[in-house]
Amino acid sequence: MTERARRAQIVGTGLIGGSVGLALRGHGWHVTGTDQSDATLQRALELGAIDSIGVDEAAEICFLAVPPGVIAEVAREMLATTKAVVTDVGSVKGAVVEGVDNPRFVGGHPMAGSEQDGVDGSRADMFAGVVWVLTPSAATDPEAHALVHSVVASMGSDVVTLDAVVHDRIVAMVSHVPHLTAATLMDMAAGRAAEHGAVLRLAAGGFRDMTRIAAGHPGIWPDICAENRVAIVDVLDDLITALGTVRESVADGDGASLAALLGAARSARLNLPVTVGAADAMCELRVTVADEPGQLAAVTALATDLDVNIYDIEIAHSVEGARGVLIIVVGVDRSNELTAALIERGFGVSIRALT
Amino acid sequence: MTERARRAQIVGTGLIGGSVGLALRGHGWHVTGTDQSDATLQRALELGAIDSIGVDEAAEICFLAVPPGVIAEVAREMLATTKAVVTDVGSVKGAVVEGVDNPRFVGGHPMAGSEQDGVDGSRADMFAGVVWVLTPSAATDPEAHALVHSVVASMGSDVVTLDAVVHDRIVAMVSHVPHLTAATLMDMAAGRAAEHGAVLRLAAGGFRDMTRIAAGHPGIWPDICAENRVAIVDVLDDLITALGTVRESVADGDGASLAALLGAARSARLNLPVTVGAADAMCELRVTVADEPGQLAAVTALATDLDVNIYDIEIAHSVEGARGVLIIVVGVDRSNELTAALIERGFGVSIRALT
Repeated sequence: MTERARRAQIVGTGLIGGSVGLALRGHGWHVTGTDQSDATLQRALELGAIDSIGVDEAAEICFLAVPPGVIAEVAREMLATTKAVVTDVGSVKGAVVEGVDNPRFVGGHPMAGSEQDGVDGSRADMFAGVVWVLTPSAATDPEAHALVHSVVASMGSDVVTLDAVVHDRIVAMVSHVPHLTAATLMDMAAGRAAEHGAVLRLAAGGFRDMTRIAAGHPGIWPDICAENRVAIVDVLDDLITALGTVRESVADGDGASLAALLGAARSARLNLPVTVGAADAMCELRVTVADEPGQLAAVTALATDLDVNIYDIEIAHSVEGARGVLIIVVGVDRSNELTAALIERGFGVSIRALT
Repeated sequence: MTERARRAQIVGTGLIGGSVGLALRGHGWHVTGTDQSDATLQRALELGAIDSIGVDEAAEICFLAVPPGVIAEVAREMLATTKAVVTDVGSVKGAVVEGVDNPRFVGGHPMAGSEQDGVDGSRADMFAGVVWVLTPSAATDPEAHALVHSVVASMGSDVVTLDAVVHDRIVAMVSHVPHLTAATLMDMAAGRAAEHGAVLRLAAGGFRDMTRIAAGHPGIWPDICAENRVAIVDVLDDLITALGTVRESVADGDGASLAALLGAARSARLNLPVTVGAADAMCELRVTVADEPGQLAAVTALATDLDVNIYDIEIAHSVEGARGVLIIVVGVDRSNELTAALIERGFGVSIRALT
């Protein structure tokens, strides 16, 4: 007996949507796609990112890879016309999660950046080792959350569960403001280059590294800034204040403060976590949870706090219906730590090796 | 008859001094070194970065690779005790050039950055394709300038001649302030990580690129900030003002201004010059100049303005003494442009192919 292929829908078959399609088809899924552009859609078909064009009413999961401004609207439409669990790939989550508010919707954000635009840049391994944030809300069905977690983890990504508002504050700090700052420095240097031709010639390794992100297509950034306005303004205010302090230290010749700033930054930078690799030994934790909203999110958020990568997740309901069992797959090396933390919080946990 | 080896002196045999030694010895030079640390000096000898330890009174060129704060003092000492032309590798030039003020001193700054500290990181090819700025002053002997230019170009570097004060303003823009900004962003992110453990996990490619320079050793930065205080404060003030403008655009939802900022930055970043490669065809320009101060600097600064790399330079004095000939080697592809500009400024120029 041949196993039936699992079915997925992709709305928006550009760089990210195309890569999701390639990754899923590589795992045997049947993928159907739509895009506002017929040319992009045809190209996605040629590249093997989708099997067919249209809307698949039998899809179990639907990825929205559409511009930030239209995610909520397209999500509501897909939730109404299909039975699929719907997830998106937008860089800002608060407004989308609030605007959709449906048990079958799970906000998502794969942190895969690329300067290459369009479906031609798609790759099946785009998400290998990449952090993929999920932002389930109190309204999210745990089954929907577990399905999305399991599917995105199967693409090799490192799944992190966060509250949508916390996600937005974090990306303002580690993505949006750094991007705006890189662009500002690049524009300033280019302005001074008009005066001294040598400016850009002296822009060596460090400057090139620092401004690399400014080479990206500006297309979606005004939308991102609009959607994450509050958090971005907050981080920019902090940055301006902090640079003012640095300016005073330089002006006053306060070498001790500068050494402290640079020393702390060096140590933090050297300790930046590296990409999570494939675990060579995994095990399965069976966690008994009350069958009520928020339990899955609590467990996955705890794993996030402990920096434990969850490679797969599944929900098994007990026959009584009042309790359920979460089956989560983690690396053997970190399983004891997560187990201890779960038990401390009152969850029942059993471990078994995966061989 | 065996040709006598040319002799060089290195003061400070760490990462940069050691690399100069390896590069020169690779070209057949005899290199003598000193260092404040006996261990560093012994290691430089073991690694083959120097031939012997001590001060070589017969050295024709002396490289100072010592901390910024002591360059002027060590330069005056070496100028007094040897007949060598002396050059340094410090990141700030104005104070040093003013503090030494000797015809045999030529300020220099190889823009070779590395996060690896110490003589063990030395490499013979450290300067291949790297911009090496020279900052001759009105007091500099053209012969001394030509010698340093020729030697550093022989290590594969792309020599750029600039006024010391202009150099300092440029590096504040493309090196010092970006470094301080990267450290500030890294410290802010680390501070917020104390609140949300996921902050650093979400710090993806762009943030890693942008903060890479903050991983460098803070050791010399307080000195650099002290020496280049005026230019750094000036650029920091401009950056704070520019970020304030960006903040207003974000707060006001002014997408058009943000798109303009990011679009200009993208185009400038994509146009950043790449490293100058080895020219496959070179030619020699013979430029007749008045035998007076400033002529060589004028010619090399013109090449810098036109982005023409000078691979070698030599001065041939005419018998009459009132005029001299500069022999400069440039790529064939750019030779016509430089020739035209030189003729326009009243220099006599003849070209011949190098075969």
